[in-house]
Amino acid sequence: MLVTLKQIAEELGISITTVSKALKEYPDVSKKTRKLVRETATLLNYKPNSFAVNLRTKESKTIGLIIPEIVHHFFSSVIKGIISQAEKKGYLVITLQSNESFELEKKQLDLLLSKRVDGILISLANATADYKHLTEIIEQDTPLVMFDKIAKIIRCSKVIIDDRKAAYKATEHLIKIGCKRIAHFRGPLLPQNSIDRFLGYKQALIDNDIIYDPSLIYLLNEMSFEEGQFYANQLLKDHNDVDGIFINTDLVAIGAIAEFNNQGVKVPDQINVIGFSNWFMSSVISPSLTTINQPGFEMGKKAFKLLYKEIRDKKKNKVISYKDVVLDTDLIIRKSTKKMLI
Amino acid sequence: MLVTLKQIAEELGISITTVSKALKEYPDVSKKTRKLVRETATLLNYKPNSFAVNLRTKESKTIGLIIPEIVHHFFSSVIKGIISQAEKKGYLVITLQSNESFELEKKQLDLLLSKRVDGILISLANATADYKHLTEIIEQDTPLVMFDKIAKIIRCSKVIIDDRKAAYKATEHLIKIGCKRIAHFRGPLLPQNSIDRFLGYKQALIDNDIIYDPSLIYLLNEMSFEEGQFYANQLLKDHNDVDGIFINTDLVAIGAIAEFNNQGVKVPDQINVIGFSNWFMSSVISPSLTTINQPGFEMGKKAFKLLYKEIRDKKKNKVISYKDVVLDTDLIIRKSTKKMLI
Repeated sequence: MLVTLKQIAEELGISITTVSKALKEYPDVSKKTRKLVRETATLLNYKPNSFAVNLRTKESKTIGLIIPEIVHHFFSSVIKGIISQAEKKGYLVITLQSNESFELEKKQLDLLLSKRVDGILISLANATADYKHLTEIIEQDTPLVMFDKIAKIIRCSKVIIDDRKAAYKATEHLIKIGCKRIAHFRGPLLPQNSIDRFLGYKQALIDNDIIYDPSLIYLLNEMSFEEGQFYANQLLKDHNDVDGIFINTDLVAIGAIAEFNNQGVKVPDQINVIGFSNWFMSSVISPSLTTINQPGFEMGKKAFKLLYKEIRDKKKNKVISYKDVVLDTDLIIRKSTKKMLI
Repeated sequence: MLVTLKQIAEELGISITTVSKALKEYPDVSKKTRKLVRETATLLNYKPNSFAVNLRTKESKTIGLIIPEIVHHFFSSVIKGIISQAEKKGYLVITLQSNESFELEKKQLDLLLSKRVDGILISLANATADYKHLTEIIEQDTPLVMFDKIAKIIRCSKVIIDDRKAAYKATEHLIKIGCKRIAHFRGPLLPQNSIDRFLGYKQALIDNDIIYDPSLIYLLNEMSFEEGQFYANQLLKDHNDVDGIFINTDLVAIGAIAEFNNQGVKVPDQINVIGFSNWFMSSVISPSLTTINQPGFEMGKKAFKLLYKEIRDKKKNKVISYKDVVLDTDLIIRKSTKKMLI
């Protein structure tokens, strides 16, 4: 059983108030008594009741985290970054998974609010198009930081990468090595990052005088290995002149490469493939995948740091200023792309 | 700002007690007043203070989870199983990562206890050899369930797979297809599951009249892709007659296959490879990996269910009975093993 102040008091034959004061090192309790109480508390393995502590300080030292999917290399890296940083500052993290569902996301935010977490970190579900549940949190003065899948319109701090710029960089790489007909496997219409990656792709074409051809755009929903295989096969049926593809995420790109390997289509000799995210499997498949590095662990750390600052500023009644942090991405050149022979 | 009972009381010009009673539907408050209070609470977006609720019910409706590593396909599947089941029962999950460190694991358990979580789920760090911190939890009457990496000696409920049996099945498969010289890449000395997998391997050899040769055992520490490459290379240098390997975990097996591919050693023609865990990448690499399926999601769900039952039994002052649940594993035959030609 957990030991209470009452038990310590009974053990020593003193009042509960004295025990409580002694543990808080109040000077109106004698040094000798304070020492005795401390020793007895240690002996009985007393742990202060954190709910009571919470009521006093009005802090729960707990934050909430809502993430679309846990079994995902990028997101699990983000979670790791958040938890490692939170632990350094003495915060615990309650993790919830929205399964890309808008309804679940709303319900989970409510749950976290009712738990009086000190702040919330969220990466939005793909299905989220209405943001009332988010503005509500901000109106209630609970610090909120969004990362990766964000809503630009919401006034709060955000940690993202510049998806448009990164996608531009990826597409430009294909153009530089000599590709003329570049397809794009994009994500669904909703999350901002799949829109931005598409726009970066398109801009790179325009800036390099390559005509944008909508028939080279494939819109994926699941973003799975299997979808990668399916659309690689579809692409081979639809177009026989494509010499490069920029694919929204590495897992899909790995599926596409598996399909090309399977059909005897040589990567990169017949078709150059570039992915996005730098999932660690990308370096070990054959041929290894050229991709854009998306820093998950750093994103998690940074998101927590911003949230922590807001929690502290709120406590000090300072005005909270929102920040947009854009993390750097790198082009990682491997063997799925190479300079084309003319 | 979060709305308090006081604000509702002021808004309606009634006492805080009346508001509180009305929200709890006490019959000594008139139906009309109760309705009015409810409506005002909704209007002002009042959320009950869960810490106060906690003090009353002595439940936090929160459980703690300590896991060695989050960025890991098996463990992230377990976390997903736990969170999905916890959510169904209205529990939140605080996740901590021990980084395979004993010191961190102890500290985190203390932190969770001080938070008065209703129960704890834990998979032990590889470094954990002393179990005092675990017995302490049980003595303090906090429900504890261990999963995957457990300490057999601790009296609490556990969810595991039968590692010895599964490893026996894997090794037996190699023997059945004709392998005579079977190497084993094993995990470090501490976690029980790497011992059990080794023992299962050894028993299968003995039962099939194959002499156990300790020089065919390689002890790995990191269990990484790179270690798989390194020891595959080492194995080729040390032995030229090995025709099969049973590898402790899929990630290492994938590293080993990459090294064999790299050196032009044909899998399965020259060497048969079987892994353990059925990580989803195992089905998509080339050649696809024969392995043992380790049910992570189910393990997470089952671990939470056991914990939930203990929490409820404790509340009802029932005697808690500990259960050992052993989940089934399957042999998944793919292309990295095949019947040998004699």
